[in-house]
Parts: sequence; C-alpha cells; structure tokens
Amino acid sequence: MNTRSEYDLLGNLDVPADAYYGIQTLRAAQNFSITGVPISHFPELIKALAMVKAAAARTNQEFGLLHEGKADAIVYACQDLINGQYHEQFIVDVIQGGAGTSTNMNANEVIANIALTKLGHGLGEYQFLHPNDDVNRSQSTNDAYPTAACLGIQFAADNFVPALASLKNALEDKGKEFSHVLKMGRTQLQDAVPMTLGQEFDAFAVTLGEDIDRIKEACALLCEVNLGGTAIGTGINTPEGYSKKAIEKLAIISKKPLVPASNLVEATSDMGAFVFFSGILKRLAIKLSKMSNDLRLLSSGPRTGFGEIRLPEMQPGSSIMPGKVNPVIPEAMNQTAYQVMASDLAVTLAAEAGQLQLNAMEPMIIYNLLNSLKMLKQACEMLENKCIRGIQANQDACLAHVENSIGIITALVPHIGYANASRIARQALLSGLTVKSLILEESLLTEDELNELLKPENMIAPTRAKSGS
Amino acid sequence: MNTRSEYDLLGNLDVPADAYYGIQTLRAAQNFSITGVPISHFPELIKALAMVKAAAARTNQEFGLLHEGKADAIVYACQDLINGQYHEQFIVDVIQGGAGTSTNMNANEVIANIALTKLGHGLGEYQFLHPNDDVNRSQSTNDAYPTAACLGIQFAADNFVPALASLKNALEDKGKEFSHVLKMGRTQLQDAVPMTLGQEFDAFAVTLGEDIDRIKEACALLCEVNLGGTAIGTGINTPEGYSKKAIEKLAIISKKPLVPASNLVEATSDMGAFVFFSGILKRLAIKLSKMSNDLRLLSSGPRTGFGEIRLPEMQPGSSIMPGKVNPVIPEAMNQTAYQVMASDLAVTLAAEAGQLQLNAMEPMIIYNLLNSLKMLKQACEMLENKCIRGIQANQDACLAHVENSIGIITALVPHIGYANASRIARQALLSGLTVKSLILEESLLTEDELNELLKPENMIAPTRAKSGS
Amino acid sequence: MNTRSEYDLLGNLDVPADAYYGIQTLRAAQNFSITGVPISHFPELIKALAMVKAAAARTNQEFGLLHEGKADAIVYACQDLINGQYHEQFIVDVIQGGAGTSTNMNANEVIANIALTKLGHGLGEYQFLHPNDDVNRSQSTNDAYPTAACLGIQFAADNFVPALASLKNALEDKGKEFSHVLKMGRTQLQDAVPMTLGQEFDAFAVTLGEDIDRIKEACALLCEVNLGGTAIGTGINTPEGYSKKAIEKLAIISKKPLVPASNLVEATSDMGAFVFFSGILKRLAIKLSKMSNDLRLLSSGPRTGFGEIRLPEMQPGSSIMPGKVNPVIPEAMNQTAYQVMASDLAVTLAAEAGQLQLNAMEPMIIYNLLNSLKMLKQACEMLENKCIRGIQANQDACLAHVENSIGIITALVPHIGYANASRIARQALLSGLTVKSLILEESLLTEDELNELLKPENMIAPTRAKSGS
Amino acid sequence: MNTRSEYDLLGNLDVPADAYYGIQTLRAAQNFSITGVPISHFPELIKALAMVKAAAARTNQEFGLLHEGKADAIVYACQDLINGQYHEQFIVDVIQGGAGTSTNMNANEVIANIALTKLGHGLGEYQFLHPNDDVNRSQSTNDAYPTAACLGIQFAADNFVPALASLKNALEDKGKEFSHVLKMGRTQLQDAVPMTLGQEFDAFAVTLGEDIDRIKEACALLCEVNLGGTAIGTGINTPEGYSKKAIEKLAIISKKPLVPASNLVEATSDMGAFVFFSGILKRLAIKLSKMSNDLRLLSSGPRTGFGEIRLPEMQPGSSIMPGKVNPVIPEAMNQTAYQVMASDLAVTLAAEAGQLQLNAMEPMIIYNLLNSLKMLKQACEMLENKCIRGIQANQDACLAHVENSIGIITALVPHIGYANASRIARQALLSGLTVKSLILEESLLTEDELNELLKPENMIAPTRAKSGS
Repeated sequence: MNTRSEYDLLGNLDVPADAYYGIQTLRAAQNFSITGVPISHFPELIKALAMVKAAAARTNQEFGLLHEGKADAIVYACQDLINGQYHEQFIVDVIQGGAGTSTNMNANEVIANIALTKLGHGLGEYQFLHPNDDVNRSQSTNDAYPTAACLGIQFAADNFVPALASLKNALEDKGKEFSHVLKMGRTQLQDAVPMTLGQEFDAFAVTLGEDIDRIKEACALLCEVNLGGTAIGTGINTPEGYSKKAIEKLAIISKKPLVPASNLVEATSDMGAFVFFSGILKRLAIKLSKMSNDLRLLSSGPRTGFGEIRLPEMQPGSSIMPGKVNPVIPEAMNQTAYQVMASDLAVTLAAEAGQLQLNAMEPMIIYNLLNSLKMLKQACEMLENKCIRGIQANQDACLAHVENSIGIITALVPHIGYANASRIARQALLSGLTVKSLILEESLLTEDELNELLKPENMIAPTRAKSGS
Repeated sequence: MNTRSEYDLLGNLDVPADAYYGIQTLRAAQNFSITGVPISHFPELIKALAMVKAAAARTNQEFGLLHEGKADAIVYACQDLINGQYHEQFIVDVIQGGAGTSTNMNANEVIANIALTKLGHGLGEYQFLHPNDDVNRSQSTNDAYPTAACLGIQFAADNFVPALASLKNALEDKGKEFSHVLKMGRTQLQDAVPMTLGQEFDAFAVTLGEDIDRIKEACALLCEVNLGGTAIGTGINTPEGYSKKAIEKLAIISKKPLVPASNLVEATSDMGAFVFFSGILKRLAIKLSKMSNDLRLLSSGPRTGFGEIRLPEMQPGSSIMPGKVNPVIPEAMNQTAYQVMASDLAVTLAAEAGQLQLNAMEPMIIYNLLNSLKMLKQACEMLENKCIRGIQANQDACLAHVENSIGIITALVPHIGYANASRIARQALLSGLTVKSLILEESLLTEDELNELLKPENMIAPTRAKSGS
Repeated sequence: MNTRSEYDLLGNLDVPADAYYGIQTLRAAQNFSITGVPISHFPELIKALAMVKAAAARTNQEFGLLHEGKADAIVYACQDLINGQYHEQFIVDVIQGGAGTSTNMNANEVIANIALTKLGHGLGEYQFLHPNDDVNRSQSTNDAYPTAACLGIQFAADNFVPALASLKNALEDKGKEFSHVLKMGRTQLQDAVPMTLGQEFDAFAVTLGEDIDRIKEACALLCEVNLGGTAIGTGINTPEGYSKKAIEKLAIISKKPLVPASNLVEATSDMGAFVFFSGILKRLAIKLSKMSNDLRLLSSGPRTGFGEIRLPEMQPGSSIMPGKVNPVIPEAMNQTAYQVMASDLAVTLAAEAGQLQLNAMEPMIIYNLLNSLKMLKQACEMLENKCIRGIQANQDACLAHVENSIGIITALVPHIGYANASRIARQALLSGLTVKSLILEESLLTEDELNELLKPENMIAPTRAKSGS
Repeated sequence: MNTRSEYDLLGNLDVPADAYYGIQTLRAAQNFSITGVPISHFPELIKALAMVKAAAARTNQEFGLLHEGKADAIVYACQDLINGQYHEQFIVDVIQGGAGTSTNMNANEVIANIALTKLGHGLGEYQFLHPNDDVNRSQSTNDAYPTAACLGIQFAADNFVPALASLKNALEDKGKEFSHVLKMGRTQLQDAVPMTLGQEFDAFAVTLGEDIDRIKEACALLCEVNLGGTAIGTGINTPEGYSKKAIEKLAIISKKPLVPASNLVEATSDMGAFVFFSGILKRLAIKLSKMSNDLRLLSSGPRTGFGEIRLPEMQPGSSIMPGKVNPVIPEAMNQTAYQVMASDLAVTLAAEAGQLQLNAMEPMIIYNLLNSLKMLKQACEMLENKCIRGIQANQDACLAHVENSIGIITALVPHIGYANASRIARQALLSGLTVKSLILEESLLTEDELNELLKPENMIAPTRAKSGS
C-alpha cells in the first residue's frame, strides 16, 4: 500500500497515500474499534461539522486571522462535505475517547486535504494549509464539536419529523375511516363504555402530534451553541467578538436560528440540551410502544382474542402452525422503542459522568441521539406503510361487543338509577344475558327508549339536550 | 372499637365510627400495604383533589345536577382540606391498583362525611349526601384523578422551585465572592487553561437556572387537563359544556391557567405530560449530581487531592481516622439525584404499561413525581445551607496550580507559535520546571511580556485588543 | 426538653437527656432529612449491626483489646437490639452522606448507652464505655457497615423467601386445580395451539421457584464479608488474625456461613454482591410483572376480552360504571415490580459512582435493597391471598375457545399434510366456520378420527405412540 | 438481476437466483430495516443455529421422521455454516418482529439450499428438501431459536472471557510491579491511610476475576434449553422422547452440557436466563467503569491533579492546548460500559413485555447480549493493550503524598491515643506542617519510634506483633 508519512505530538505514522484523513484520524481509528460503526454512518453530523468549519473560516478571515485564499479553499472543501462527498473518509468509531477530538480532527484533516487539492497541492502538504492552524483556527474541539452536534441532531430531526408526521396522518385517515365503527372502550382491560374505533385512532394521531411539537421545542434548545468558547468556555485565543460573529455566520449557512449560549463556561460542560432531547425521544418511544401494544391487543385472535381490527399480513407467522400470521410490524416497533428508551439511559449515564469543565463522554451521547433518530425514522415509516395504512376494522365484531356488553348500562344510569343499574349489571354477568333483555324483562324502559338511549351518538359524547337530574 | 357499617357493590364492612373515610377507602387500605406510605404524605395532592371536587360541585350546581345546599356543603368541606385539615384521613397506600379509584374514593368519602357533619348529619349518613352520587357527580376517577395530579404536581413544584432558586442564588453569590480567585480549568481531568473559581460557580448557577425555566415549561404542559372526559374521555354522563365550565372554575380556584386538553380520549390514557415532567426532574438530578461530583473533586484532599475549596465541616468523618472530615452533604445530594433518576425509570416503565383507554399505573407515576419533588426540595435546601453558603476558597493553592501549570502555555501560542509551545510544554513535563522559567531561559519572551500575557484578565476571556496574526 | 451535652471533633451539642443515641447521631439527623425514612424502618439492618458489634467485642476481648466487663456489657446491649428493643433510637435518614458512618455511629452510640445503663452508669458517661474506643474498637465504618448490610439483607431475604414460596405453592395448587381445563395457548397474542390452564399456572410456579434458588445464590455471595479490613481493607490498627476470628464469631452469632473476602481492599470498595442481589430482585420483578400482565389479560372482559379466568373481586372498580370490577391486585403488583426495577437502576448508578478505596453511596444501595425486599414481601403476600388463591376458571369459555379455534389444526398436520392444513385454516378464517366442520365437509378425516386426534391429551403433549412419517 | 420465484402463505415473490436464502428471508429483509445490522454480524448465533438444525436432523432421522439422505445433506450444510461459510446469506435485521421466526427461517432456507446443492439439485428446488418440512422438522421457532440463542451467547462468552482474563492478568502484573510503591489510600476522595499502588491494582484484578466466575455461572443457566417444546412448550407434533434425545445430540455437537429445561412451557416464554446474563454484564460494566474512573483520577494532572500514575500516550489531546494528552482509552471504556448498562435496560424492557406463552421481543434481547459481549471484548483488549500494560507509577509523587499526609496519623493512634492524634491532625491541617514534625516537636515519640511505626509494612497490613492495649 502506498503511504505518506505524517507526524504529530507523538511522532510519525504512515497514512495511506490517497487518504484525505491524516495522522490523528488514523491514530484514533487504531485506538478505537468498539462498535464498528464509523462516523460516516451519520452524514448529518459530517455536514454540520463542515458548516462549523466554514463559518469559522470566514470569521477568521474577517478578523484577519486567515488569508482569503485559505478561507476560500476551506469553505469550498466544506461545501463538498455538505454535498455528501468524501463521507467515507470519516472512519473513526462513534465511541471514542477524547471528548470528540478525534471526530473534530477527522474533519479538520479531511477538509485540509480537500482544500489542499483545490489549491493544487498534494495530500498531506500541510505547510500550505494546516488542519490545526488553519481549519481549526480559533476553535477547540470543546466548542466546535458540540456546536456541530447541536446542528447535526437538528438535521437528523428534520429528516425524522416528516416520517412521524406522515405516520400521524395515516392514523388520522384511519380515524376518519373508522369514525362510524362503534366498539367498546376498555379501562384496565375491563369492558368500560362505548366509543368509536375512529376515536381510538384519532387519539393515536393526537398523541404523536404532540411529540412533533416537543421535538421542535427540543431543537430550539439546541440552537444555543458554544462556538467561540474554545477550550473551557473562556474564549481563550479568540479575538473579542469572535463567538458572536462566528455563530451568526453559522446560522446563515445552516439556516438554523443559532445564538450564543448565555454562559459559555456553563455551555461547554453542560449536556442539558442533549438530555432534554433524549428525554423527548424516550417520551415518543413510550407512546409508540403503547400504541403498538394496543394494536397487538386489538388484533389479537383471530378467534380467541379481541379481534376488533385486522393488521395487514406481512409474512407467514409460523413454520409449525399453518395459517398463523403475527403482528410483526408493531412488534418491531416495540423493540425499536425499547432500544430508544435504553439509549436514553445511556445518555443519562454519560451526562452524569461529566467532570469539571467538560464532559468527556460526549461522543457516546451524540451517537445515541443520532442512532435513535435514525432507528425511529425507519420504524415510523415501517409502521405507517406496512401496518397502519392497511388496517381493517372487524366492524361486526366491534358492534357485537357493544351489544353484548354490560358496560353500556352506564349510559342508562341517569334514567334507571345507579342502584338498578348495579343490580342489572350483576344479573347480566351471572346469567350471561344481555343488559337490553334484562331491562326489557323488568320493563324498566321501553324498547324504543332503550334504542334511543343506546344510539351510538348518545353514548360516545356528552349528552346534548336536557340532562338534568 | 366503635364502628359503623357501610356497604358497597361487594357487601357490608365495619368502618371505625369516627372515621371520615368510608368503606371503599377501608377496602383499599386493607388491599394495599406495599410501601407503607399513605397518600397523606403528599398534602399537595389532597388539596388538588379538593379543588377538583369543589369545581365539580359548583359546575354540577350550575347545570342543575346538584342542589345548592349540597354544593355548598361540599365546597366548604373541600375548603377544610385545602386548609390542611383532615389529611390524616387519607390512609390509602400510594401504590394501589385501580388507576387511582381508591384515592378518588378516599377523597369522595372524606368530603362527603365532612359535608355531612356541616349539614348536621352523622358520619356515614350518605342518604343525605353521597360520595358517589353527589361528590363524584359528573366525574370518573379517570378524569378527576389525573386532573388533580396535574394540579398537585404543580403545587409541589411551586414548593420546590424557591428552594432551587435559593440554591442558585447561593451559587451566584459564591461566583461573585470567588471572581478574583484564579485557578486552572480542567478538561478530561487534565490541566487545561486558567479560569476563575467565580466562573466555575457562576456556571453552576446558570445551569440550575435553566432548569427552573424547564420546570415552569413542564408545569405548562400539566395545565391541559381532562376533567369532564369521565370514564374514557368521551364525556359519557356529563352534560354538554360541562368539561369547559368545570375546568374554568378549577382554574379560578387553583389559580393555575388550566385548559381542556384538545382531545379528551387521548388525554385520558396519555401519560406524556408526566413523562415530560419526570424527564425534567431527571435532567436536574443529572446536573445536581455532576455539580456535587465537582464539589467533591475540588475539595479532595486535604493534602493529596485537588484542594481548591473547603466545604463546611458538618460531622466527624471517621471513627478510625482522626481529623478526617468528609463531603457528606454533596454525597447525600448525589444519592438523592440517583434516586430521582431511578424514579424517572419507574415513571417510564409505568407509562409504557398503559393499555387502551387508560393507564392503570397512574398512582405510581404520581407518587414518584411527588416524591422526587419532595426529596429534591429537602436536598437543595440541605446543599445550600449546609454546604454552598459555607464554601471557602483555597486561594493560594488555586494560584499555585496556575503558576505551576503547563496549561498556561496555551495563552502564549499566538506569540511563540504552536511548535515552540508544544516543545516547551514537553520539556516542562519531563523536567518538572515551570513554563515561565523555560520561556525565560530560551529568551522567547521577556519577563515583562510574560507577566503581561499571563495576567489573569488576559487568560480567562477572549483577547481584547488587536489579536490579528 | 432535658438535655445532656456531648462533644466531638466539631464541638459540643445538646442531646435529649433520655436519648440512647448521641452527638454524632444527632448531627446526622440534623444534616440529612431527604426521605423522612429513618433506619429504624429496617430492623434487619439494626439486628445485623448489633451482631457485628457483639462479634467485634468478643474478638477484641480475646485479643486483649477490651476488658471482659466492657465486652459483656456491649454484648448484652447488642442482644437487646437483636431482640427488637431500642430500634426507635435509630433516627438517621436512610439516605445520608458519609458512606454509612452515621448509621455505624448511631449503632455505636446506642449500644454504648445501653451498655452504660447495664453497668450502672448514666447515659452519655462515655468515660466508662466509649462508642468509638470500645464499641467500634478494631473497626471502621468501612468494614463494619457493609458487613452488617450483607447480613441484614440476608435476614430480609429470609423474611421474604417464605412469602415467595407460599405464592409459588398457591400457583402450583391452581396448576393442579386447573389441570383439566383445556384452553388455547397464545403466542404473540395470536391463537396458537391447545394447552391446559393448569400448565399455564404450573409455568408461573416454576418460574418463581427458580428465583427462590437465585435469591439463595445471591445470599451466598453476601457471605463474603470484609470485617477486619477497617478503613480501606488493609486492616490498619487491627491485630493480625483479627479479621478471621471476628468473622468466625459473627458466623456463629448470625447463623450464616460467613467467610472473609479473599481480598479485603477489593471488598471494601466493591459493590458487586449488592449489584448482583439487586439484579436478581429485578429479574424476579420482571417475572412477577409479566405474570400480572398475563392474569390481567386472561381475566379481561367480562364480555369483550379473553375471559378465561375470574379474579376475586376485591373492591368496586368504578364510581361511574355500575358493576365494574378491576384487577386491582395484579395492577398493584405491576407497580411494585416497576418500583423494584427502578431501584435496580438506583443501585446501578450508586455502584458505578464508587471512587478509589470506597463507595460513598453505600447507604442508598442498602436502602434500595432492603426497601425492595420489603415491598416484594408485602406484594407477594397480597398477590397470593387476595388474588391467586381465589382465581376461578371459566372452563366453558376456555373450551369454546379451543373448539372454535383454527389453531387446533396444527395437531392435524401430520395426518392431513401442511398444505391441506394451511388451506383449511385460511378457509376457516375467511368463512368463520370451524376447522372441524370444514375437515368433515371435505372428508379429510372421519368424525371418529377427528375426535381422537383432538382429544386434549393428544394435543397438549408430545405424541405417545408411533408417530413416524 | 436473475431471479427465481418462490411462494409462501402470502403468495409469490422473486428471490435473487443465486441466493441461498429464500422467500421468507427476503420478506423479512424487506419488512425490517431498523438498525441496518444484519444477523451475519453475529457469527456465533449462526453457528449455534446450524448446530441446532444438525441435532434436530439426526434426531428426526432416528425417529424415522427424516430419511438418511436428507439428514446427511442437512448436517453437511450445517457443518459449512459452523465452519464460517455462507454467513453473508443471513441478511435479516437483528431487530425484527415475529419472535425470531425470520432468523429461524433464514437458517432453514440457507441450510435447505446448501443441502440441495450438495444433493445435486438447484437452489429453490424445495420439492427435494424443504426448509420447513425437513430442516425445521419437529421444531418451532419458539424452541429452536431460543435454544440457538442460549448456545450462541455461550460461544460469544467463550470469545470474550479470554480477553477479560488477559486484562485481569495485566492488572495482576501491575499489582506485582507496583507492590513497593507506597501511596495514600482515599475514601470519599479524602486522604485516608497508606497502601501500596500494587494493592490498588491487585484489587482491580480481583474484582474482574470474580466476574469471570459470574459469567461462567450465567452460562450454566443458559445450558437449560427448550428444544423439543415446539410452539408453546407442550411438544405438540414431536414424538415422545424427542426433546431429550435432540438436546443430547446438541450437547455433543456443541460441546456444552445442555439439558432440557425442567418445564418446557415455562422455558418457552421465560427470559430469566437472558436477564440474568445481562445483569452479570451490567455488573461487569459497572466495575470496568469504576476502574476507568479511578485510572483517570489517579492520572489526573499532570500538575494540578492526583498525578500518581501515568497512562501511555495514545494520541494528541487537543488542537488548542499544546502538549495536552488525555486518558482516551479509559474514557472509551467508560462509554462502552454505559452502553452495556443501557443494553441491560433494553433487555429488561423486552423481557417484561413477554405475554402469555411467548416473548415476542426475543430478537432484541439476543441482539443486545451479543452486541454487549462484542463491545466488551473489543474494549477489554483495548484497555489492556493500549492502557494498562503501559501504565507507569509516579513513585516519588506517591511517596510525597504519604509523607505529606495527615492520614498517616491513624497508624499512631494506638501509641499516642485518639485525643492526641485528633489534636495533632487538626494542627497539621491548619498550619500546613507535617504530622511527623509536629509529633517530634511535642516529643510524643522519638524519631526512631516514628520511623519504625511509619514503615510501609506497618501501615499497609494488620499489626504483626503484640498489639494489645
């Protein structure tokens, strides 16, 4: 293999001759191979890093810290990364020591080498443009990296939210489609009072819609960044005013309303915005899991379960039981949700482990957030397209449940009294007879009255007319 | 023991004659004794329940569902509970089956009996005013209980936030007091660059201040309540318009900007706002724990540790090691934080376990939130008064760290170059000499220049003047 | 209030005149009030501490470090604590800084004062017998406290295991009672193949039985103790041989097969045995929760659910829905299980937070374990007595499920082939007809053959006779 | 692309012509793409599946359920997989619905097609040898898959344990190397009493050694398998005696002491052994994280920290701070540990989600265990080779800490009394003088006595000679 020699604080090392990354990237790649997942799996982070470097370059140029030619070359190189090129050069494992230094240096080195080729120089000829002195100018990993993370997570959220919104729409569509399917509601798995299947799906849609809002709020917290704080937030080795200007430029490049954090020392070590974001993803995961549980319950059967809906059949369910088909899509969503909930614990543990002026565990926090967003996106698309859109109602079974239920007696309480209602309910349970037949037998209400009171529209909403005692 | 006999769906039971609670409370007390912690440990919840019952009574009165006399008696009874009376009558364990029915019935029964005595009747004479038919009128546990929880948690937060704000103030005061104490910042536990001890404490204050905001946002989400949704959110057995009116009244009574949830079916089973709240408490716990870890690190010693601050001595530290004093207050805060973080998992597990139209695990969710708030309040007061306010700086040790450090060389990089700086840093590390002496030896800078560049004000903030390359 | 004055390293303090605890206990009580739960809530821990102190006293006596008179007085005092007296004197909060020093000193002081009264002296006259110099002789909190914890947790386990075993027996009894109730098994909530309800309850019994074994194994790990390691495990200020002898005596007193840990330095900071124990409790909680979920599923209904079993009715289920009864006991068990699972996280967080030669978070670890054991004991007794023992089978419904099911076709596969079976299964699903009728219609088997093949005993176990292809 | 057409219950689908997997694998691959991690990432699982299939084939042959020719072909095909061939054909995502059916079918199809080619038939010519009827004969996913998982996890543990043992050895070696380096022990981050650096590293070695034992115990629990239980553990459609015989054969093939679970119905749905295994990995992760924290603390500095050891320098630590080198390897281990601890929560959540006769979330449980083992192996090798083996002691600094410390006074307590010791300790703290100088000044001991008492061998172990009072 052709190589070129590079050196750093610890000495010389041979780097593949055609590599755009350099010595520090290679050291890190050799040091860390925990997950086998390289940074390149998360293009949003690479794009965000490139934007940070471009914004820094232009700001350095303005402050007279970088010549125009170098700044141009750096910015053009960053543009290539933003366009999705050279991502395979980001080879460092997502779990790494060094608080992100290796990821930052991977970006610095790749950008420097792209820029060098744009300037007509060879790879590794850092005397013309240097990863540290030029690309990383006025930056530290400790401000450039978390700023890029705040941005990259927002980009990943931007990719995810449409999938979530589309899932929500699918649920709303089912809500409309099933708005006339009367069924029994259940509380504590016991028959409660009637509702429509449409109301049930509407509730699913509403609950996911709330989390679209929460994700947007969580993104807003990520807009406070610490670029310009350098090593520990004091801004050492930056010119006064650098932070403000660099963040303004980054806001323009990224089209995100970024602002400087109010206290850069605090912002350098604080993981609060990431913890918040993770908490929102966990909340969403809880909801998706609960909904998947409900879908599996409602489609349980076909003969001995609730049997109120039918999920689309996606694959044979058993090698031993002929004809069996399983709710595999909600099951996969459940597992995704559990994985996301577990990632929230990973973020929690890492956030608590921060010490003094930095949190050394940032790489893992960022990995878990990006990975959760990626998994959730896949899983929501799967759930929508391979399950929700194809759900069918077992309308007859739903209706039979209502007519056969004891719970409908609740709607009669204002008319026959709580005491009578309790007695009849008991009798129905023990005899196996229907509430209707027992009421008629006792002539507590006429059949017409009964039919009126038990009309769907009268059981699934507050009472319209005079409901006085 | 004197008793009176009461009955319900399951038959008769003897209740202590002087008890304000009734048969359903007693059954629940007999059924559940898991934690030994009765509801009465959380007065905010009892007050909130009383407010819900008062609001419902007045609304029922307006809709002609409750006579004025009964409504008055109920409201006066509720007022007693709001004033802190009769709380010992809330005897049901905080962990209970039934999705809160037992807590709701405990409130219904106690209020009914207080009201009965106000009306001149005896305890248990429910023919004159009934726990279910009157106090619980137009309500279900499934709307009254979570509405009360949303309110009660806000009251508990109102109790907690001042303690947190006061802790923040104490940290700010220390930030000012220590604003001239120069020290080394550390990243990844390695010497980094200088800062002031004041900056470090300011950062603590800022980070807690952010979570005061977050708690307020979390309270805002708790203002969307489902009162009027009754059993499953469809509002069965309420008159149209009831929900809106009842919540308006409750907002007035509670002085909280309550509004109806946009979809009551969703709101009945959704635990999202509780999960969100719990996530915020977890975030705060992470920060408090990180801060406690830092305090313990900074005060490590007295001779073989960092030794930059001294915590107040609260108790002898060892029976075997004379003179040893330990950082017991931050340690207690750490443990509190871990307990709160664990409670967030309890909430997570319970929230995910909801099924169909209700979450049967609500009692435990509510208990964990109230308990976390209570513990955090105690712990923040402890941390402020028994630790933060008495912290002293080891100013000389802090300064010696800076002068002895290699990290100050970072401030010289713009003047002697990165290459020289790296070489000198290495030399300092290996020889044990100071950076200053090595620079002077090599005549890289004059003593005057050096003193100027290493002035505190030049190392702990961005560079003022012309910093161009 | 009458007081006596005591002093320690930090000065003087007034202690209630009749208190058996002393100044260090009082300081700790004033320092910590996080949970409001005093040590006295866990008598097993107090007994264990007393045993440790008694064993130490006798060992010190043997080594000539304590006169017989003092040793006797200490041992008699310990005996009082072991007998359950004076427990109210243990007033320190279970969450406390100081790695257990306050709990250890609470024990030292109470024992000293009881001993003083036995010797005819007054409370606080430590010149005759001293909490540190005599009761704590040759000990440090760092060995005495975790040793007591290892013992106390075993005592709590001894209290819990019979409750768990009794629950297991109840499930076995139901297994026998229901051994002839044929029902459909379900996998992934879809109808699978037949089994008996007895097999289902047997499986519950077996799975709990395994965890009785696991708890015993976990107790075995707790038998390796570090008594004699003193401050950091090096045994400083103990005579050679002290550790071995003290642990031998403690083994005799406690009737537990205690042995010295193989490396006392490791044992002083390691929380491994507690983490292991907590993991076992979590495992059990998972099982109890899964079983409770199953009980709630199987009893779902009464009309629109699985309806295969009826749980005993423990309390009315709803104020708004007449006749509703809920599975409140399994619900309470679920919540207990979630709390225990969350406690395992608390233990995890605290265990990871240990630093260097000690884990300062031990008090919280020990509290969580003792509290989990206490809750599980209550909850298992509740589940057995208020639920399992009263469960009834809906035998007819169970049988109807089998006869109506498609899943029984699995048993026919060896006789009609997989292809035929799949086709018939499909037809049954779409037509709503039974498998039996379709098979007969197609004359694939005779009615006699069918009845033979579908005999319960032929569907719920491997095939007896010649089953060759 | 060339394709062949295959069909299943849901109809026809085109499979790549040269694929060894078939239609059900392809459906699953299309259904699930959550993580992007295919089963092929875990060769141990594939090998284990192949062993299960081979054992089943031979057992079916013995029972006359499979002709010798087919059985031979299947066994040879399995041997290819065991040898590591065809693993790229396992394309299904590790997170999948269906409780492992897709993984099981992936194995069945690949084995069938390999076997077909061995028999001279074409891919997909299942009329000669069928994935379900032949390869899966007498099996269900619900017994074959968890049995393979139990085996595969053991294989992965076999790969991991040597890495862990080697890390332990490295720590032991350091323990020996540092056995004469005297240093201060610390409890609660405060100076305690002296010990050797060797004792500290020995303790690390011992604590990891314990977990090698625990992992072996956890593997023992995985030796109880449910092969032969088929769909729900009743063994439907297997001949009597099949289970016992199949497991005997599997034990021989796998060289693991496998036995049938005592109750196959319980074993089919129970995740207890996986939960147990995960708990052990979590325990180990806690220990590794605590050790990494200690390494980072002990190497903190170089000038303002503890500075007792130096870690090997693996990469430059900062782009902005010249000469800074960070403890990147322990940091990466910390993050790995947090990831493993989070995976334990994933396993917990999934285990609790099991319902009735099966746990549908098994695929995710198995993935998390295999992934944790894989990460831990990488991380332990990294920690050993890139950190532990190169650690150097700062012997002088360690000794200076001891000599300068106040804590050594503990060793003098038996000779100058606790009161004197406390007073001197206080004086030393306030004056900054050494304990030695103060003792000499007061003539409490002669210099010779002092030197004798403070000899390392007298401070780091119990007292040899006459230590009586």
